[in-house]
Amino acid sequence: MLKQIQGGVCAAKGFTANGIHCGIRKNKTKRDLALIYSQTPCSAAATYTQNLVKGAPLTVTKNHIENGVAQAIICNSGNANTCNANGIEIAEQMSELLAKELKIDATDVVVASTGVIGQPLDITPIAKGIPSLVKGLGDYSAYACEGIMTTDTLPKEIAFEFTVGDKACRIGGIAKGSGMIHPNMATMLVFVTTDCKISAQMLQKALSKDIQDSFNMISVDGDTSTNDMVALLANGTAGNEEITCEGEGYDAFCKALSAVTTYLCRQIAGDGEGATKLLECKVCGAKDEKTAKTVAKSVICSSLVKAAMFGSDANWGRILCAIGYSGAEVDVQKVGVCFRSGKGSVVVCEKGAGVEFSEEKAKEILLQKEIEILITLGDGDGKAVAWGCDLTYDYVKINGDYRT
Amino acid sequence: MLKQIQGGVCAAKGFTANGIHCGIRKNKTKRDLALIYSQTPCSAAATYTQNLVKGAPLTVTKNHIENGVAQAIICNSGNANTCNANGIEIAEQMSELLAKELKIDATDVVVASTGVIGQPLDITPIAKGIPSLVKGLGDYSAYACEGIMTTDTLPKEIAFEFTVGDKACRIGGIAKGSGMIHPNMATMLVFVTTDCKISAQMLQKALSKDIQDSFNMISVDGDTSTNDMVALLANGTAGNEEITCEGEGYDAFCKALSAVTTYLCRQIAGDGEGATKLLECKVCGAKDEKTAKTVAKSVICSSLVKAAMFGSDANWGRILCAIGYSGAEVDVQKVGVCFRSGKGSVVVCEKGAGVEFSEEKAKEILLQKEIEILITLGDGDGKAVAWGCDLTYDYVKINGDYRT
Repeated sequence: MLKQIQGGVCAAKGFTANGIHCGIRKNKTKRDLALIYSQTPCSAAATYTQNLVKGAPLTVTKNHIENGVAQAIICNSGNANTCNANGIEIAEQMSELLAKELKIDATDVVVASTGVIGQPLDITPIAKGIPSLVKGLGDYSAYACEGIMTTDTLPKEIAFEFTVGDKACRIGGIAKGSGMIHPNMATMLVFVTTDCKISAQMLQKALSKDIQDSFNMISVDGDTSTNDMVALLANGTAGNEEITCEGEGYDAFCKALSAVTTYLCRQIAGDGEGATKLLECKVCGAKDEKTAKTVAKSVICSSLVKAAMFGSDANWGRILCAIGYSGAEVDVQKVGVCFRSGKGSVVVCEKGAGVEFSEEKAKEILLQKEIEILITLGDGDGKAVAWGCDLTYDYVKINGDYRT
Repeated sequence: MLKQIQGGVCAAKGFTANGIHCGIRKNKTKRDLALIYSQTPCSAAATYTQNLVKGAPLTVTKNHIENGVAQAIICNSGNANTCNANGIEIAEQMSELLAKELKIDATDVVVASTGVIGQPLDITPIAKGIPSLVKGLGDYSAYACEGIMTTDTLPKEIAFEFTVGDKACRIGGIAKGSGMIHPNMATMLVFVTTDCKISAQMLQKALSKDIQDSFNMISVDGDTSTNDMVALLANGTAGNEEITCEGEGYDAFCKALSAVTTYLCRQIAGDGEGATKLLECKVCGAKDEKTAKTVAKSVICSSLVKAAMFGSDANWGRILCAIGYSGAEVDVQKVGVCFRSGKGSVVVCEKGAGVEFSEEKAKEILLQKEIEILITLGDGDGKAVAWGCDLTYDYVKINGDYRT
């Protein structure tokens, strides 16, 4: 039913994209301005950071898509346009300049920024770049993806085909992650497009639900960014009967959306700043889902667990410790812990106490690039998955002097 | 009124101490068993970790000092005696063996452990070591201090003389910190002795209040240990009129206690695992003290702020970000930030937005060993101080393979 396809945010019919270097960054080989455009107006939904300090573009975007309609997304990297006295003004200018060039309404533009906080964003390079950004629109999801990257080492894009009724629909997304990743109600920057016909209300409903199990379950460094945003545009070009309520069509859409967001979550966590490993913490047997989520997130957020995973050290006591301080209601006498990867699995703790295991085998398992930390709580049916990464020298290096 | 003196936990009359290598650790040059002893029974108070996973020694100690009386503290390093099936039994044995040697009651022993979680603790080296540990008792606070250290690079001890009525009293403490430091109602291991005469009830009251502003305001890595404990013994040898209620005497005692704990907090934070710098975040102008504490702790816990301080990078946007996600009620439009050290101070943010400043001057300030991050919120009179340290390559190195 769900088939992975090529094309990222251009996989859905009627969407084009582009990304250029306009000059916000000094490095001329790095694209710093991205655009996603739909030929026709879209249903639009978005979620934003819960940080009290909010990037100016978020405020502007929120106003623009209050009516549930958008047609383009513009995003720059290299500067977050946050904590600047004239931030709103600049974000509005970005929308207006783009709208003029695209001959659409400025209120149909989603605007986003990522980069350093607290440095004035000069509109000049953006204004200069917009004409060629628009002129070059095409099947260039990869360029847009590169344009929103900061310290990411890999582009993050994905697309799937799915069916609503008898109509084939497509959904695809791009994301940037890396640092200041500990989303709360949203994540760094994720843009998803679909040609599925769905009302703005159902689109927002699907997105708001989805992020609870996807972007809100990742952490790279525990720092919730000021500029987190997930935006989702649906232009209806697939021609399916419009999804306006819950039912089979809505379920199919949610499943496809989840496939996109889960993929991007794993990509964001695995490419966390300085990361060498993706950590996937799967909790089951919790008394409820909330408890499972609290435990899973506490484990992947622990600096000590993350450093142990970097060293491929099966130091499971730190996992018990992180469960214990998570704030979740857990009977520690029932906790079990198992490490798993492509090289097999090893049980290290049962009923809250250590069991004998082969350190050699554990090391072999933990030397892999993708590590699963499996936790059983023995209290019920609640389960959850959270994604994180290891804590490495390079995380410190990257963040010891990010601005220079 | 308050005079710093020598002697650590042996500064108070009637207290002796010792520390030896008994063989829990392989490294024979590292003391791994510590003892603090009072000639006479003491009023005793303690606070413990709020982690649901609790070290067995904490459970045993809690039972022992339920009656407010203790006479000795024994503590090993190299093994936390936590998440072990026979942990309680081993902790009881430690108490009994020591009590027998000292000819005191086993329930008058405070027992503590620190080190790796989840590895069985063998009683043999401890049993063998206790006779020489007791035989060597003397003015050896420094040996006891060394005996409780794990990855600490510096011993942490301090003592003060103060006056209650017309009697000179003494109070001193030792501490170990370094990693898994994010105390909640207590800290790693801190032992304080005084010859001040004070009831067990008032002693507990003073301690419980003190830790809210001292140990609960430090964080090295955000991980709340399973074995945090602060224990305070008062043997009354100073001969002052017993403190049994609030008043001048109690205030003088609290002030002296705070001098000891604040000093140890700064030592623990500044000697955090891998740390090169002590960070002191001072918040004022909060709407209340709770808000100030929440903000101060959020800032010193931020991995991104910590890494920026390591790099002496005045990346104040990360401080705003950490204030914003702290959960505290703050008007971000009023926030001011200033960095200060022995080299002067520099204002970097006013009313929530950046102000021009000399990067060169900021760098010079941030290159020092002790950095103050001063935050004004402009909302009221609430203030707080929190202590932390920078995030460095060595933190990752130390924790990438702690067990080997």
